[in-house]
Amino acid sequence: MTPTIGVMMGDRHGIGPEITARFLAEPDLDQFGKIVLFGDSAVLEYGQRVAGTRKAAVSRFVSTPLPSEGVGEARVSSTAGSEVLDTWRQMIQAAQRGEIDAVLYAPVNKEAMHQGGMQENDDLDFFSTRLEFDEYTNWIYVLEPLWMSRITGHASIRDVPDLITKENVLQSIQLLDRTIAPAKKAKPKIAVAGLNPHAGDGGLYGDEEIKSIAPAIAEARLLGIDVDGPFPPDSVFVRAQTHPYDGVVTMYHDQGGIAMKLLGFGKGVALMGGLPFPVVTPGHGTAYDIAGRGVAQSLGMSQAFRIVCRLAS
Amino acid sequence: MTPTIGVMMGDRHGIGPEITARFLAEPDLDQFGKIVLFGDSAVLEYGQRVAGTRKAAVSRFVSTPLPSEGVGEARVSSTAGSEVLDTWRQMIQAAQRGEIDAVLYAPVNKEAMHQGGMQENDDLDFFSTRLEFDEYTNWIYVLEPLWMSRITGHASIRDVPDLITKENVLQSIQLLDRTIAPAKKAKPKIAVAGLNPHAGDGGLYGDEEIKSIAPAIAEARLLGIDVDGPFPPDSVFVRAQTHPYDGVVTMYHDQGGIAMKLLGFGKGVALMGGLPFPVVTPGHGTAYDIAGRGVAQSLGMSQAFRIVCRLAS
Repeated sequence: MTPTIGVMMGDRHGIGPEITARFLAEPDLDQFGKIVLFGDSAVLEYGQRVAGTRKAAVSRFVSTPLPSEGVGEARVSSTAGSEVLDTWRQMIQAAQRGEIDAVLYAPVNKEAMHQGGMQENDDLDFFSTRLEFDEYTNWIYVLEPLWMSRITGHASIRDVPDLITKENVLQSIQLLDRTIAPAKKAKPKIAVAGLNPHAGDGGLYGDEEIKSIAPAIAEARLLGIDVDGPFPPDSVFVRAQTHPYDGVVTMYHDQGGIAMKLLGFGKGVALMGGLPFPVVTPGHGTAYDIAGRGVAQSLGMSQAFRIVCRLAS
Repeated sequence: MTPTIGVMMGDRHGIGPEITARFLAEPDLDQFGKIVLFGDSAVLEYGQRVAGTRKAAVSRFVSTPLPSEGVGEARVSSTAGSEVLDTWRQMIQAAQRGEIDAVLYAPVNKEAMHQGGMQENDDLDFFSTRLEFDEYTNWIYVLEPLWMSRITGHASIRDVPDLITKENVLQSIQLLDRTIAPAKKAKPKIAVAGLNPHAGDGGLYGDEEIKSIAPAIAEARLLGIDVDGPFPPDSVFVRAQTHPYDGVVTMYHDQGGIAMKLLGFGKGVALMGGLPFPVVTPGHGTAYDIAGRGVAQSLGMSQAFRIVCRLAS
C-alpha cells in the first residue's frame, strides 16, 4: 500500500511555493505515495503562477489558519515563520491521528521561525518537543547514494571533543543503520570517520578514536551492524564512493558539511532520524534571492518525496 | 631565463622511479626549466624499464651515495628512507651554492624516513632545520586553479582552537598571497575559512572568528591583500569555485583535506611555502600497492614541475 505524505509549502516568501507547485505537477507521483497538502490555497495558486503549472497531484487539501500577509515577498517575516509553526502543529496532530504517515516540507527560514515564536534550536527540536519524544534523534543527510549522520551539530570546535562519547557514537551508528535499511538496503555498509587528523594516528593527535569511536564501532559490530572505521576524515568520503559504503557517520558539523556541499547537497535531502514518523525537507534553503522568478527547480522536493515514501512504506 | 630545477626520484621502492621516468620523457620540458637529476642511475634505469620510456630530459646528472639495496620492492625500508635524506642534503647544498633554483621530489615515505634517521616531524621541518630557517613556513596545497594554506596541521581537534591566533592567521594569509602571486596572479583573491560551524554565527558557536580570524583579515586588508572572510567552512570551497577565489586559508588539517581529496588532490601538488627556494612534490603518496606495475601516471610530477618553474622564475 502506498503511504500518505503530508506536504507543506515552506516559508511563503521563499522558493517553497513555486517548487512545491512544480513538484506537484510531476507525473506519476501517486505510484510512490498519496499527498495531503497543508496550507493556504492562495500560496499554492501563487506558486503555480510562478512555476507555470496547473496540475497538482493532491488527494486532499487541509487549510491552515490564514495569516493576513502577502506571498513571495522574498524576505524574513515573523508572520510567515509563525505560519510554518502552525502548519507543523497541524501536521503533527494529523500524523498522531494516523491521517498521514510522514511529513515533507519545502524550505523554511530559521530566523523567520524564531521571530515567529519558535523557542527550540531548530526544526528537529521543534518536532521532538511537540511529540514529547525523548529518544535519540539526529539529522541525517542524503545525497544518493550516500547517507550521512553526525554526532555533533551546532557546537563550537572547542566543545566537540567532549561531546564525542562511546554512547552517542554507537547511537548514531544504530540510527543511520536503521534509517537506511528500509529506504535503500536491508543491511547497509557504514563507515565511521575519526575526529582527528589521520584518525589520531594511534593516539598521536588525540585519543577520541581510541577512547570512544573504536569501542562504539566494536560494539555496533557485535550488534550485527556492518560498520568499519574510524577512518581518516580527509579520505572517508572518497573511500565511501570507491568501496562503496551506504552511509558515513561524521563527528562534527563541517566534517560532513564540507563533503556534502562539494558533492552537490543542494540536490540532496535532510531528514529527521529517529522520530516516530519520517520528516524530510530538501537540502537547500529558501533562496530569497531567486524567489518568484520561476527559475527554482523542484529536484530536492522530488528526491525528498521519493525517500520519504520509501521510509514510510 | 628558464630556471634550473633539482629533481629526485623519491622513495626507490614506491612509484617514484617510474613516474619520474615517465615525466622526464614528456616533450618540451625544457621550455619551462632545465633539470638536474639527483640520484642513483640504477633507479632511473629501473624506472624507465617499468614506464617503458628511454628519453630523459636531464641537463645534468648528480650521483648520490649508493646504498646496497634493490629497487622497486614496494616496502618501507630504512635504507631507502636514509637515501632520501642524503639526497635532500645534497640538493639543499646545491641550492645554497646557486646550482639549482628549486627542488621537485617524487613521493617519499615518512615511516621509511623516520626509520632512516629523520628526527624532524616531516619533510618541511627537515628542510627548515637544514636551512637553519626560522621564519614562518607552512605547507601549501595546489589543485589548479585553487591554492590552499592551513594554520594547523598534525594537531588534535582538541588542541586546534588554542593554536588559532591572530598572528598565525595573518602569517598564513600573507604566505598564501605572496606564494600565489608569482605563480598565478599578481594580486590573488583569497578567502579565509572560519573555524566553527557557520563561522561561529556571531559568537554563538565559538569566538575564534571574532577574536582572531576577523582581526587578522582586517589587518591583511590594510596591508593591501585582497582577502575576504571568515566564511562558513562547509561552503567556503563551493564559494571559492563560484566566485572565484585563487586561494583558501583553512584552519585545520581536515577542513581543507576533505575538500582537496574530494576535488582530486591526487592530481595536485604540495609545496613548502616560505622557504628561501621553492620545494614541491606531487599530492599523492608512494603507492606501494601499484609500484612496479607500470600503471602509475606522472600527472602529479608534471603539474609540480610546471608550478615550481613558475615559482622559481
